[in-house]
Amino acid sequence: MNFAKILSKKITLKKASVGVIGMGYVGMALAQTIANAGFSVLGFVRKKEKANKINNQKIKRIKATTNPSLFATCDIILVCVQTPIHVNKKPNLSFLKKAVQQVSKYLRKGQLVVIESSVPVGTTRNMILPLLQKTAFVAGVDFFLAYSPERVDPGNKKFALKDIPKVVSGFDKKSKDLVAKFYSNVLKKVVPVSSLETAEMVKLLENTFRLVNISFVNELADYTKSLGVNIWEVLSAAKTKPFGFLAHYPGPGVGGDCIPVVPYYILNDAKKRGVNLKLVEQAGKINDEQPRKVVKLALGVLKKTKPKKKHKILLVGVSYKPDVNDIRESPAIRIWEILKRRGISVSYHDPFVPRLNGYSSKNLSREVIKQHDIIVIVTNHSNIKYHKLLRFKKPILDTRNVFKNHEHSNVYRI
Amino acid sequence: MNFAKILSKKITLKKASVGVIGMGYVGMALAQTIANAGFSVLGFVRKKEKANKINNQKIKRIKATTNPSLFATCDIILVCVQTPIHVNKKPNLSFLKKAVQQVSKYLRKGQLVVIESSVPVGTTRNMILPLLQKTAFVAGVDFFLAYSPERVDPGNKKFALKDIPKVVSGFDKKSKDLVAKFYSNVLKKVVPVSSLETAEMVKLLENTFRLVNISFVNELADYTKSLGVNIWEVLSAAKTKPFGFLAHYPGPGVGGDCIPVVPYYILNDAKKRGVNLKLVEQAGKINDEQPRKVVKLALGVLKKTKPKKKHKILLVGVSYKPDVNDIRESPAIRIWEILKRRGISVSYHDPFVPRLNGYSSKNLSREVIKQHDIIVIVTNHSNIKYHKLLRFKKPILDTRNVFKNHEHSNVYRI
Repeated sequence: MNFAKILSKKITLKKASVGVIGMGYVGMALAQTIANAGFSVLGFVRKKEKANKINNQKIKRIKATTNPSLFATCDIILVCVQTPIHVNKKPNLSFLKKAVQQVSKYLRKGQLVVIESSVPVGTTRNMILPLLQKTAFVAGVDFFLAYSPERVDPGNKKFALKDIPKVVSGFDKKSKDLVAKFYSNVLKKVVPVSSLETAEMVKLLENTFRLVNISFVNELADYTKSLGVNIWEVLSAAKTKPFGFLAHYPGPGVGGDCIPVVPYYILNDAKKRGVNLKLVEQAGKINDEQPRKVVKLALGVLKKTKPKKKHKILLVGVSYKPDVNDIRESPAIRIWEILKRRGISVSYHDPFVPRLNGYSSKNLSREVIKQHDIIVIVTNHSNIKYHKLLRFKKPILDTRNVFKNHEHSNVYRI
Repeated sequence: MNFAKILSKKITLKKASVGVIGMGYVGMALAQTIANAGFSVLGFVRKKEKANKINNQKIKRIKATTNPSLFATCDIILVCVQTPIHVNKKPNLSFLKKAVQQVSKYLRKGQLVVIESSVPVGTTRNMILPLLQKTAFVAGVDFFLAYSPERVDPGNKKFALKDIPKVVSGFDKKSKDLVAKFYSNVLKKVVPVSSLETAEMVKLLENTFRLVNISFVNELADYTKSLGVNIWEVLSAAKTKPFGFLAHYPGPGVGGDCIPVVPYYILNDAKKRGVNLKLVEQAGKINDEQPRKVVKLALGVLKKTKPKKKHKILLVGVSYKPDVNDIRESPAIRIWEILKRRGISVSYHDPFVPRLNGYSSKNLSREVIKQHDIIVIVTNHSNIKYHKLLRFKKPILDTRNVFKNHEHSNVYRI
């Protein structure tokens, strides 16, 4: 039986059923785009409540389950679990491994498995493939294996997922053709590349590019500060260059599940191969240092404005980027930690994050502001009325330029 | 007498006469754009032959002279002289200083002096201004001083100079308004910024951004090479991401009068201020190392293909970028130097550079190719038929991906 032909036909008819493992930002966004294209999607999650929550939303053609035996009902399985790093910056592929092991347990002939998570180069071939071949099925004959890195950008209102070209690769030609065909039915543009490793590297490059550039501008901000030049004004002018420039902005450090994580997939492996990526390494160090810099700046301001006092600090915005509730690797967490270690009392406000570190988000009332000695703006949510903070005359450390270059005597910049 | 008003009026009527000091790439491109806009331009050059050459071209509204006393006839003087770095990477502002000293000698009331050259932050205020005020004229009253960094991109066919927004700044409001008004009459868009220092920094940021990104991709290329992944394919796939990415390409190192030079204006000054820009420094080191890497690769290929022999190497393309004759800071020069030091004989071919290091550009005939052991493609000119090189079966080190990812057994990549 020619499984590839059968699956290909099912894709054409939009009869291929799609399983998505991991219904976080990435899995959910993909599931929605795929369901919108007319395919039925079954989301696999670990917790019953999460499954219920998704099912209660009654999204057309999307269901969720905690039952891995239902893998067998899927023609295409997209693996979208998180691949974080350990504290020592080594890749933590345990979630991915576990997910693939379960897929392997229920693998049936004719299925296409697509890895979407960011992974170190070689993971699909060297870790995923052996796990699946344990079933005694042969890749490219009995089942198909592809790698297609996600490009989901949470909070991006400019680009819908279906408008973002998707890079695809396969273990063999059949796998590649199948994943390309599937995504051609879901998204506007598919970009096939020659190998699994090339596709893996594409994602690592994209994220590392961002880390390098954000760290570069954070480093440069130290210099412009020493000059008394406003880096935000410099950036907005430089941005008018219509070629050869892409603005990145300083801030308290970059968070999320990709940019501070993925470059270490490269760094770790490169080291093993004797390749010394000093520039990328330096970019990682700068980013790790940013929260400490923010604390130092805040304490510097307090030293001037309220010396010799037990300080209370209010963090405004704690998620890692605007308009999301995701706090993974958020610089706010690191800032809080450092302040706590110094015995400084911290509260926070974030309309997207109701609870953090055992505390509740405070509202931005006069009373709350009064209790604090400095406001540190860590995230620039679009639904916070930052200008209202100005009237309390409290010192404000604005790490995100929410005051758009306007000069205020009580506003300090990173 | 209100000099600003008079000059403003002259600009409106396009009766302001414009002097351009330094008629190199930047000065010439600016002069042409300004002349096209209807202003008369007088170019100031050092050599009679250069002046004659320009005058012989009979370009409408452009004349050239070697006579600095004619500065007095100009209402607006644009300073476009080169500002290179010394061998020790310290800024060499001697050409700029000399030019401004001459302007100062002939300065008359009512003139606007605009610095266009890339300079370390603070140069306009701390070096140029005192030189001009020596005349006992007061800036902002008797004469006007502005800084507006050039964004000329030699060989860029996509953007005409008049379509590239121009950042402008002034010593005072009058100077700023005048330079803004002038360039509004010449170009499509003017971007005023708040200080001379901000405008100076914009240019340094733009160029340093490019150095950092080119060095990043050169560093990463070492890693992808160790993986057997083609960096060019990775880049062309990554490029399809419609946000948050800008492709830069590996190569033999970046040359020209800006990218390898301007970042050192930042690095030198930052060091003096106790700011340690490790990422930018690393980017500079990587770029400096690229020519050596190319030589190492070339010799590695020869070791395999033609061991134990006195080698002859043919460099194809020696200018620092495609389709220009500019060899300033070109990696080809460095590669040649390193090869020479190792006693390796070098020839070159470049349709834009007839003579170099006392040699003439060779044609790419069968005889010439036969005499060499390896062809190193250093610059990707659009008028070289690279594919014709393939038939000679000589090893080719392609540092620019001129063969567009096609696999050829005799082609090696950086």
